[in-house]
Amino acid sequence: MPCGATMKVLLELRYVGERYHGWQVQSGAPSVQKTLQDAAEMLLMCECRITGCSRTDAGVHAKQFFCTLESETLSRFPIEKLPCALNHFLPWDVSVKSAKEVPESFHPRYDALGKAYEYLIFTGQSRDPFLYGRVWMLNGRKIDHQKMDEEAKKLLGIHDFSSFCAAGAKPGDRVREIYLCDVSREGDLICLRVCANGFLYNMVRIIAGTLYECAVGTKSDCSEILSGKNRALSGRTAPAQGLYLSRVFYDADALRRYKDEK
Amino acid sequence: MPCGATMKVLLELRYVGERYHGWQVQSGAPSVQKTLQDAAEMLLMCECRITGCSRTDAGVHAKQFFCTLESETLSRFPIEKLPCALNHFLPWDVSVKSAKEVPESFHPRYDALGKAYEYLIFTGQSRDPFLYGRVWMLNGRKIDHQKMDEEAKKLLGIHDFSSFCAAGAKPGDRVREIYLCDVSREGDLICLRVCANGFLYNMVRIIAGTLYECAVGTKSDCSEILSGKNRALSGRTAPAQGLYLSRVFYDADALRRYKDEK
Repeated sequence: MPCGATMKVLLELRYVGERYHGWQVQSGAPSVQKTLQDAAEMLLMCECRITGCSRTDAGVHAKQFFCTLESETLSRFPIEKLPCALNHFLPWDVSVKSAKEVPESFHPRYDALGKAYEYLIFTGQSRDPFLYGRVWMLNGRKIDHQKMDEEAKKLLGIHDFSSFCAAGAKPGDRVREIYLCDVSREGDLICLRVCANGFLYNMVRIIAGTLYECAVGTKSDCSEILSGKNRALSGRTAPAQGLYLSRVFYDADALRRYKDEK
Repeated sequence: MPCGATMKVLLELRYVGERYHGWQVQSGAPSVQKTLQDAAEMLLMCECRITGCSRTDAGVHAKQFFCTLESETLSRFPIEKLPCALNHFLPWDVSVKSAKEVPESFHPRYDALGKAYEYLIFTGQSRDPFLYGRVWMLNGRKIDHQKMDEEAKKLLGIHDFSSFCAAGAKPGDRVREIYLCDVSREGDLICLRVCANGFLYNMVRIIAGTLYECAVGTKSDCSEILSGKNRALSGRTAPAQGLYLSRVFYDADALRRYKDEK
């Protein structure tokens, strides 16, 4: 590739969402996208264009996140050194794990075949300081995670998920396919996993809040909530700090393996 | 117990050490002890005396820490509600897990039969933002944890640990008994565990730094370092943020079980 031509690189990131108003650039509030753009421009001394695979909300974390980086000077930079060099300019809570060149036509959002989220709920007797800002802290609460799991299973498959979409979201097609939806417990932590071909606004947080309400008895049946296609039927929106974007799939085999793993 | 008489309660804590200049009260710097004392005095509206089981350094964490709380108004307070009530006045990074009454003669430091520390080293390719401030971040470094484990085993037993005591520490008996000392790896994390009847100043951090240096070849043999009884022979003091006080034993059976567990 001749020097000066624009090159496109796919970056794999991890970030702690606590200090950011989400992924997307917005005026007057720190975002992960802008933080990464600033770091890339400092490194490459040239305008950089960053496009993300998703728009995580304020406070939401990412164990895996992909974005493309485009810039004219990128082709001069040894790509294998890009993660380490970018990390040098990034704050502690954002980290680049890998980088690889992708074709000009690649889009990190439209080319994703599926995504997986995890939602963590802490249920120990007293709050755990090591998990502050990283879970929904429901210490002292007894929660039947098996009931949550039973209800979670009812969301599997292709449905109109209007009941699990934030009331203020833009109109549009609300049909998605959930490939995997389960709830398990490890010690004091309850973990909800949802893998789907796409997600509506606040979908996982509303699923988490609704499953919690089913477990404590203030909501009863996810099949009814789903078929009602009405946000008023589902439960509360669980807080952002328990939510992690955990996997993004561009490869059908990897997605199949994840779904079959359980 | 009549109202107004001083009562002694043993509190079990957990804290993230990042924001504190260690456990102990000191002027002009935040400490966990002072933070807890302020919370207790706010709750009990009366002077409170807090005595800790150990003096953790600045930045060191505790997964388990014990201290006693003494105050005249304490006997009026239902003891089972004390953890939750104190947590209401504590910041996010300090949490009380349990409380129980102990005899006047009980001392959380002198009555401890042993303590266990963990030291965590991160060795993944790129830094993990979720572990920032909570591990020794040695990303990109290849470390032979089995070599570390071999050298760690040489420290087991009763020895003069002068080589593993900070040069500026007060003079005194430097003989301790290490019951358990091992190194294991889980994914990108290397974990050193040390359980002993007592610890010298910076002992675990110097052990961690020395075992690391043995693994990378800048130090060679822990038996020689130990028998030299000289701080100049051992390796660097590993950073505080990787260190966790993990268990404090007041019960001989619990200590025996921990040692035998491996």
